[in-house]
Amino acid sequence: MKKLRVGILGATGMVGQRYIDLLRDHPWFAVSVVFASERSAGKSYKDAVRGRWYTGSDIPEKASDLIVKKVDEIDYAKENCDFVFSALGSSVAKQVEEKYAKDLPVVSNASSNRWTKDVPMLIPEINPEHINIISKQQNNHGFRKGFIVVKPNCSLQSYLTPLYALHKNFRIKKVIITTMQAVSGAGHPGVSCFDILDNIVPYISGEEEKTEEEPKKILGKIKGKEIVKDDSFEISAHCNRVPVIDGHMACISVKFEKKPEKEKILEIWRNFRSIPQELSLPFAPKNPIIYRKEHDRPQTRLDRNKDKGMAVVVGRLRDCKVFDYRFTALSHNTIRGAAGGGILNAELLYKRGYLK
Amino acid sequence: MKKLRVGILGATGMVGQRYIDLLRDHPWFAVSVVFASERSAGKSYKDAVRGRWYTGSDIPEKASDLIVKKVDEIDYAKENCDFVFSALGSSVAKQVEEKYAKDLPVVSNASSNRWTKDVPMLIPEINPEHINIISKQQNNHGFRKGFIVVKPNCSLQSYLTPLYALHKNFRIKKVIITTMQAVSGAGHPGVSCFDILDNIVPYISGEEEKTEEEPKKILGKIKGKEIVKDDSFEISAHCNRVPVIDGHMACISVKFEKKPEKEKILEIWRNFRSIPQELSLPFAPKNPIIYRKEHDRPQTRLDRNKDKGMAVVVGRLRDCKVFDYRFTALSHNTIRGAAGGGILNAELLYKRGYLK
Amino acid sequence: MKKLRVGILGATGMVGQRYIDLLRDHPWFAVSVVFASERSAGKSYKDAVRGRWYTGSDIPEKASDLIVKKVDEIDYAKENCDFVFSALGSSVAKQVEEKYAKDLPVVSNASSNRWTKDVPMLIPEINPEHINIISKQQNNHGFRKGFIVVKPNCSLQSYLTPLYALHKNFRIKKVIITTMQAVSGAGHPGVSCFDILDNIVPYISGEEEKTEEEPKKILGKIKGKEIVKDDSFEISAHCNRVPVIDGHMACISVKFEKKPEKEKILEIWRNFRSIPQELSLPFAPKNPIIYRKEHDRPQTRLDRNKDKGMAVVVGRLRDCKVFDYRFTALSHNTIRGAAGGGILNAELLYKRGYLK
Amino acid sequence: MKKLRVGILGATGMVGQRYIDLLRDHPWFAVSVVFASERSAGKSYKDAVRGRWYTGSDIPEKASDLIVKKVDEIDYAKENCDFVFSALGSSVAKQVEEKYAKDLPVVSNASSNRWTKDVPMLIPEINPEHINIISKQQNNHGFRKGFIVVKPNCSLQSYLTPLYALHKNFRIKKVIITTMQAVSGAGHPGVSCFDILDNIVPYISGEEEKTEEEPKKILGKIKGKEIVKDDSFEISAHCNRVPVIDGHMACISVKFEKKPEKEKILEIWRNFRSIPQELSLPFAPKNPIIYRKEHDRPQTRLDRNKDKGMAVVVGRLRDCKVFDYRFTALSHNTIRGAAGGGILNAELLYKRGYLK
Repeated sequence: MKKLRVGILGATGMVGQRYIDLLRDHPWFAVSVVFASERSAGKSYKDAVRGRWYTGSDIPEKASDLIVKKVDEIDYAKENCDFVFSALGSSVAKQVEEKYAKDLPVVSNASSNRWTKDVPMLIPEINPEHINIISKQQNNHGFRKGFIVVKPNCSLQSYLTPLYALHKNFRIKKVIITTMQAVSGAGHPGVSCFDILDNIVPYISGEEEKTEEEPKKILGKIKGKEIVKDDSFEISAHCNRVPVIDGHMACISVKFEKKPEKEKILEIWRNFRSIPQELSLPFAPKNPIIYRKEHDRPQTRLDRNKDKGMAVVVGRLRDCKVFDYRFTALSHNTIRGAAGGGILNAELLYKRGYLK
Repeated sequence: MKKLRVGILGATGMVGQRYIDLLRDHPWFAVSVVFASERSAGKSYKDAVRGRWYTGSDIPEKASDLIVKKVDEIDYAKENCDFVFSALGSSVAKQVEEKYAKDLPVVSNASSNRWTKDVPMLIPEINPEHINIISKQQNNHGFRKGFIVVKPNCSLQSYLTPLYALHKNFRIKKVIITTMQAVSGAGHPGVSCFDILDNIVPYISGEEEKTEEEPKKILGKIKGKEIVKDDSFEISAHCNRVPVIDGHMACISVKFEKKPEKEKILEIWRNFRSIPQELSLPFAPKNPIIYRKEHDRPQTRLDRNKDKGMAVVVGRLRDCKVFDYRFTALSHNTIRGAAGGGILNAELLYKRGYLK
Repeated sequence: MKKLRVGILGATGMVGQRYIDLLRDHPWFAVSVVFASERSAGKSYKDAVRGRWYTGSDIPEKASDLIVKKVDEIDYAKENCDFVFSALGSSVAKQVEEKYAKDLPVVSNASSNRWTKDVPMLIPEINPEHINIISKQQNNHGFRKGFIVVKPNCSLQSYLTPLYALHKNFRIKKVIITTMQAVSGAGHPGVSCFDILDNIVPYISGEEEKTEEEPKKILGKIKGKEIVKDDSFEISAHCNRVPVIDGHMACISVKFEKKPEKEKILEIWRNFRSIPQELSLPFAPKNPIIYRKEHDRPQTRLDRNKDKGMAVVVGRLRDCKVFDYRFTALSHNTIRGAAGGGILNAELLYKRGYLK
Repeated sequence: MKKLRVGILGATGMVGQRYIDLLRDHPWFAVSVVFASERSAGKSYKDAVRGRWYTGSDIPEKASDLIVKKVDEIDYAKENCDFVFSALGSSVAKQVEEKYAKDLPVVSNASSNRWTKDVPMLIPEINPEHINIISKQQNNHGFRKGFIVVKPNCSLQSYLTPLYALHKNFRIKKVIITTMQAVSGAGHPGVSCFDILDNIVPYISGEEEKTEEEPKKILGKIKGKEIVKDDSFEISAHCNRVPVIDGHMACISVKFEKKPEKEKILEIWRNFRSIPQELSLPFAPKNPIIYRKEHDRPQTRLDRNKDKGMAVVVGRLRDCKVFDYRFTALSHNTIRGAAGGGILNAELLYKRGYLK
């Protein structure tokens, strides 16, 4: 089988590197072009990231000798890529992605197009059917062969899938969340060590808004030419930066329309499978929700890599004195919450015939 | 003026050391006897803590040559102490403290007597009038000259004073809290570095129960021979251990009977003063509640030592999408939350004539 | 092929767990019995380590239901094991290992028998021929079918192999070393977080002596009934505990009899292979010495897992103003420096016919 | 007494802030002007550092309302300052400092003029007499009323004073050093948390060269118009970045011409006093060298603040198997090693009549 040729926009940054690393032996996709800013253009990829390749593994051999192209070399992309992953910063992403989307599918991590009403914001276990908006998106924007799909913010990956699994059955009414988020979520160099060692910073710019609002679109429905938000419940979020390398943890209190049995919740989580599992997508976790019975799990360092960093690990389900239940949830912010999540989106699109 | 002679029960542990350190130059109290377990008894204090004196400062000279006595040498205590601080572990505290209390006032940090109905659990800014139960306690238990007062758990020091200041005015209905607590809260050796570096542990044994229940007694009223809980609102708590040395941070969401103006809340906090401030107690913070206007404060390392570690530092007051308001609060767990809080209790008792 | 049946002495501790974890799919060895103290005996292994299984991976299924035996059930061991790994604490190891060694080969991590003159202290890349002393050891001690081999301290794994590769060619005269060692080296709970976060502790009990003396035996020669030390050069070591989870780093200054060319050193390291590589032992790293050309490598977190944690990673070879050369070296202390090193020793013994 | 008016060049950076903080209540000096880059100019100081004031204390009230001036407003400086501290980055420091020095004394932390042969590089306990070169410097450069003095790199503050105290008596021949340096040494934002948490980085750009060469000038002698290096011994340094906030630790091995008695060394360190102590300079530590007898001290977090962060704390003096002795030394890199050291230099100059 011939693999699809993949371009990476923003290939030298932290998320771009994760794409290069995770796509190393992908069965369907092969990195063919790496795009970055003018500063890196013309260098080999290994030279461009020299001294700032952040993963513990080595640079994949095939990628290391690719010559970095400038992000605006769209004609080159059209000839050499079947689709692109965008790991661009949000300041430039909107404009660039829309240019690419005329001819090439863009699977994006940036926040710029998350609230574009005909762009699906995907968690493949939750809203795979949102890709059906793509044809309308193409009409709306005059995209010829391309389109844009995005993934949501990393801060909500830990709790939204477990909540979704319950919402379907019991209707959620209210959610209060506190997150404890890893420094890698801020990219590189990101958070200064001086600012976070032996410290907690109770603020991350823009994060609480994303954490509260993006779930509404993900849980929404396609109506006509756009995706309409599910406004049936509110989330309130406290977002904190904590001194851990990778892994976003959340403490969740939830109120339902009708309080379910605890055992029922555990059963739903245990048995939760969705389209990525049915389609056996290569990056799909076997169990999207892993519940740990120990009284002190999940723990960030011990559980963030479960199922290659693609599973959500949940624990401590117990009664809440104010709402109905409380629990703790964890996901790997630069794998499930970034590059791994993007790859899963692309795998879904591939199986559904949107990438070829 | 002649200083009162103070005994420290459990003087070699982490909280005991904090007492020795903080009482270094106290205007009213002087450490006269240090009590510890059989293992340390007979040694000079400096020998007993050799290699495990945890504060950055030096051992106060006067304390360093005191000979450690066994905790059960109560007759010695009666002759040489006017009152004692108890920094005993909760497994032995109840029995020992009750023996001492026959003849000596016991100002305790242990959890053992917190739910004894005629023992006041004090935060002097909140419930100083609870010391009026002492005479009834003495009658109930047959204490001749002594009595027991306790302080609450360190986890609630950060948020209870700010909530109390508002509760008086606007009646709180519901509170959901997530704490991020320092390793020093577990004593020494306490938390293994292997277990917490680059990690979050979403569980601390017994902590959520204390965090939720103790406020009810503190906010309660004396009725007859006991203190009756304030059951007018519920707290739900998620307690987490995080890799910081000192300082317990909390994220609080609160619902009132009637939502107050934000400016009104800030004004109440800004002007909050109570009995310890009126009495100019030496360990009383000038402003018990310090509100920081920056968008990213309080921060654990930067704010935990404010007003010698005795103030609560609050920030990020903002609307809550589910309740009325959200905010963040911080207090120093081994100063305000432990030895410093105990000293403030003793100062209140002294000024009110209970210690002499 | 039938796998050898392996017992693990001290199976519930940190090193014991690493053995269980690393032997998960071993081609030649299968864990058949887990031994621990009275406290754990009689429980299933998964119950015995509940709440203190420290690796990020899950307990291997086969091990999790094994019933823990007491360490002194030697008859049971004789019937159910072909050999044992000892991860016992050094206080009990000497006596227990000598009892086992009457009938069973003991591959030990403990320090107790390192200076027993007829016990080989192995780094298979350096002194595989020291196993030839085993028959003499059996005679000396009256061991029937068993024997003891040990591995050296974890602190010297990072620098001894690179130094050995050079010593063979250029004769080392003097070495000064500073180590920066991970908290996992102290076992569990080991180092208190309160003692090491935002801190360096410039002392580890007994560590400098081991770091300086053990290399002499490893580089020594069998003469008659014992292994005679190589006293041709001295090492001076400063050993520090630093706040990292895994990985011991060393800064090395070395003086030779005749200063070699820098390029020659790099070539020797690049081409260094030894018996474990020739025998294709399953745990042998492909390149025992990996030299990184970047100016700021090795780094503890990024490089400790190279070649499954079995390689030494070296960097920063440069002139020394006082000696001849300086460089930096890193090895994983609980894999290469503990359980992984023990397994490699066993693999060497197996290939040489000592285990069957 | 009227205080001298002090300008701070680079007042908004990490070292500049330390100057503002430490000069809060200085008996001789008062901050009169704060200089920074164009970006901050025109703002009040408190606005200029909003959200990036890094010390735990509050901004001194007097400084907080000063209006930030641009660094090139030299005429304003001449009218409003009696001298300036320079906390400028080394890229701009050389040029700017030389302009200021025409009319104003410049007490600098920058590395730019450290190797200018007629600029004294001061540690007041070691080479206070180097200030005698100032008149020649003024002639050489045509400085009217001003001049430049500098302080050395922070990495050598921990070990050079203890070595100097011995060198005077026993003549040092060789020194090998490994440093473990705090992240604050890199300024702010400086080291990314992602790069250093759970990690050691064995490289700091330019640091080993400074650590090895600057001592030679400090220990040198004025000959004619310049300071001539002491080349009598060589230092070889390994410099590492470690995850601590403040405090540079060093492990030192030293060889003398004739090995002294251990007791003699301890006596020399114990009794070491120098000009700053004789002159009772306000920032002078009472004992410049504090020797701790415990087997595991100094420790970075526990000892870095000794004597307000101005003392060197030394420990673990013991025989070296390769050289004569080994020991460990610590100093606070942003106090003694930066702003505090600069202030001590200014105090020496003031007492000697160079500032008025």
